Amino acid sequence: MNFGSMPVAELEGKYSELMSAYKNFQQKNLKLDMSRGKPCTQQLELSMDMLNNTEIKAESGLDCRNYGILDGIPECKTLFAQMLEVDEKNLIVMGNSSLNVMFDYIAQCMIHGAGATPWASQGKIKFACPVPGYDRHFGILEYFGIEMINVPMLKSGPDMDVLEELVKDSSVKGMFCVPKYSNPDGTTYSDETVRRIAALKPAAEDFRIIWDNAYVVHDLKEKTDPLLNIFDECKKYSSEDMVIEVASTSKITFAGAGIAVVAASDNNIAMIKKRMGMQTIGFDKINQLRHVAFLKDMNGIRAHMRRHAEIIAPKFNVVLEAFNSELSGKGVASWNNPNGGYFISLNVMEGCAKRTVELCKQAGVVLTPAGATFPYGKDPKDSNIRIAPTFPSVEELKLAVELLCICVQLAAAEKLLNK
Amino acid sequence: MNFGSMPVAELEGKYSELMSAYKNFQQKNLKLDMSRGKPCTQQLELSMDMLNNTEIKAESGLDCRNYGILDGIPECKTLFAQMLEVDEKNLIVMGNSSLNVMFDYIAQCMIHGAGATPWASQGKIKFACPVPGYDRHFGILEYFGIEMINVPMLKSGPDMDVLEELVKDSSVKGMFCVPKYSNPDGTTYSDETVRRIAALKPAAEDFRIIWDNAYVVHDLKEKTDPLLNIFDECKKYSSEDMVIEVASTSKITFAGAGIAVVAASDNNIAMIKKRMGMQTIGFDKINQLRHVAFLKDMNGIRAHMRRHAEIIAPKFNVVLEAFNSELSGKGVASWNNPNGGYFISLNVMEGCAKRTVELCKQAGVVLTPAGATFPYGKDPKDSNIRIAPTFPSVEELKLAVELLCICVQLAAAEKLLNK
Repeated sequence: MNFGSMPVAELEGKYSELMSAYKNFQQKNLKLDMSRGKPCTQQLELSMDMLNNTEIKAESGLDCRNYGILDGIPECKTLFAQMLEVDEKNLIVMGNSSLNVMFDYIAQCMIHGAGATPWASQGKIKFACPVPGYDRHFGILEYFGIEMINVPMLKSGPDMDVLEELVKDSSVKGMFCVPKYSNPDGTTYSDETVRRIAALKPAAEDFRIIWDNAYVVHDLKEKTDPLLNIFDECKKYSSEDMVIEVASTSKITFAGAGIAVVAASDNNIAMIKKRMGMQTIGFDKINQLRHVAFLKDMNGIRAHMRRHAEIIAPKFNVVLEAFNSELSGKGVASWNNPNGGYFISLNVMEGCAKRTVELCKQAGVVLTPAGATFPYGKDPKDSNIRIAPTFPSVEELKLAVELLCICVQLAAAEKLLNK
Repeated sequence: MNFGSMPVAELEGKYSELMSAYKNFQQKNLKLDMSRGKPCTQQLELSMDMLNNTEIKAESGLDCRNYGILDGIPECKTLFAQMLEVDEKNLIVMGNSSLNVMFDYIAQCMIHGAGATPWASQGKIKFACPVPGYDRHFGILEYFGIEMINVPMLKSGPDMDVLEELVKDSSVKGMFCVPKYSNPDGTTYSDETVRRIAALKPAAEDFRIIWDNAYVVHDLKEKTDPLLNIFDECKKYSSEDMVIEVASTSKITFAGAGIAVVAASDNNIAMIKKRMGMQTIGFDKINQLRHVAFLKDMNGIRAHMRRHAEIIAPKFNVVLEAFNSELSGKGVASWNNPNGGYFISLNVMEGCAKRTVELCKQAGVVLTPAGATFPYGKDPKDSNIRIAPTFPSVEELKLAVELLCICVQLAAAEKLLNK
């Protein structure tokens, strides 16, 4: 029965019942962390063969132990160009972190601009931010003092009506987004959304979309979400310079020792290489060799990702089954059921997210802080909680999610009862 | 006999003789590259055991394959804190490139400043540049639009009288330097120089010295150059915030797959970590583990560096012996005989460096471009040439240096004969 339409006495009874269950949980001394989208140990084990590679020569004969090659060894470029469906000349292999690639790109725009004038010389500049979104994107923008403007996420991706209006302001310089299995909603942008993004005519000639394709091959189910190739669409509008795509193997091979790549137009690749030529002599090519030897080709990547899905899909199911059985029909929460990615996005009763997270924490389960999925940590509805089910074991997860369901209801009951 | 005091007819004869030897060389179809300070294959082989490490857990039990740890695994911090003789809390382990560490630090100062005001908001700013120096330092400064002012290198390090005068200008914000076995001179800063640097009282409160200790353990001989610990000296003047020290294993293990570190004061470490926390989730910890397992401790590093010296010291000797036998007493060149590092600095007759490099190139030997050791590629005397003897084999080097000695004399004879 819906909490909101329950008679007060009945809700008080429900509240006592929940509080008693909650107190039982507190005595279990749980210590679980579901705050970050981290692969679990079993997932990391899948890539252990990668460490057995002691090959040091690229196919060209180049000694990968030495200096040289700014943009990645050719076979590694080939592999990731296939993964992102771009030309090899439009791809650069970088270090171990796509976050680092994005941060450095924004720094580049601040100092040297994406057009005629450095962003740092243009006074107050702004970015459109699809919300809920990825906290580390917001972190980069906040570091550089770029104002963030919320754009609501719909089932089809960012609300394009809002975005098209926003980009009429020439101080709006760009947008970070996760177009496939978005963080945290698990939404994949519809064909129409991708087309409208490619067709954007921003007032700012130096407008840049950071297309963070973090979950490009991270399907969980037989049924997968198709995503249009953004560059193919941009070609139709000559807007290729507007998009910087990034991806990494952090959730393919090793989260801490993977490879990040960037794909961009000829113009943007040239500007990035110009900067990189001053910034480094080249990234770790032995790690590039390891990745190629291990993943081999797109078939290799797909097969490998199926093994990941076999490990983590059951964990998503544990969370979803608990939500279905414990929260359905009570008017206390809604959630998504993504076909891929790393998160389940839980929307609790308005004004209850912070309290829910706090209750979980006091019983030993750490969730992503409420508000983290919004710029400046401010969820206007205090409703969204990002659930990261991959790292804990299934057993731990069952316990954690049982607790979470209690806390979601407790917080809702507290609110309705004005406690 | 000194070319300058030779009768014209005799010099003409010498010139013909040299030209004939040069033309013989052109027919050998040499193809040698001595342009960069690259380790040779035999040096890289020394570290192959590093690739056999498949350990994935840090001493703390942390899984290095996963996300986490911003500043490096503790055992790796310990190792490199010993190498730089600093506290572990004052050291951060980064990616594979100390150049990248320096570039990012300058970017950080441009955007957020080293004091109250971002460098980018302070109009024209300047750096003092000991010359001859490292072209990639100059490249970073040029990229950020920072004006470079030459400070002559003496036998004791940068001319401190000049530097002390320069820093009275508050728009002078810093200096890059290589204090041990400097690039290219092989000079190690004297105790007095280090003390005067530590005692500097720049007008700019946000003055920063990038102490690029690239050759900290890179001795070539039994006789090594001692270098005072800059931070110990700075403590005496409370100037620790003025120095950012970097180093890497690029010339210890693998040039393309090593580890870079930064050492700095508590204040500076805090500012760097604040930025890094937005820039990355952490660098490659498996590579950190590999390095610790392989190098173990300072005794391990020292023993390993002796093996490097056994390979490259004979190469330095090939060059020095050729210079001694072919160029001595002719008034056409002077050079250093360093106790460590990667270069021999050759000063040819004024106005002859470009021509010497060009002559070598036309006979198949690529040297570092003349001028590269000066800001903006402009050697005011057109005299300095950086010789990088490590990469070619001894046999190749003998040929290359025989050619070089011919070209040095040819260029000098051309100049004296007004050809």
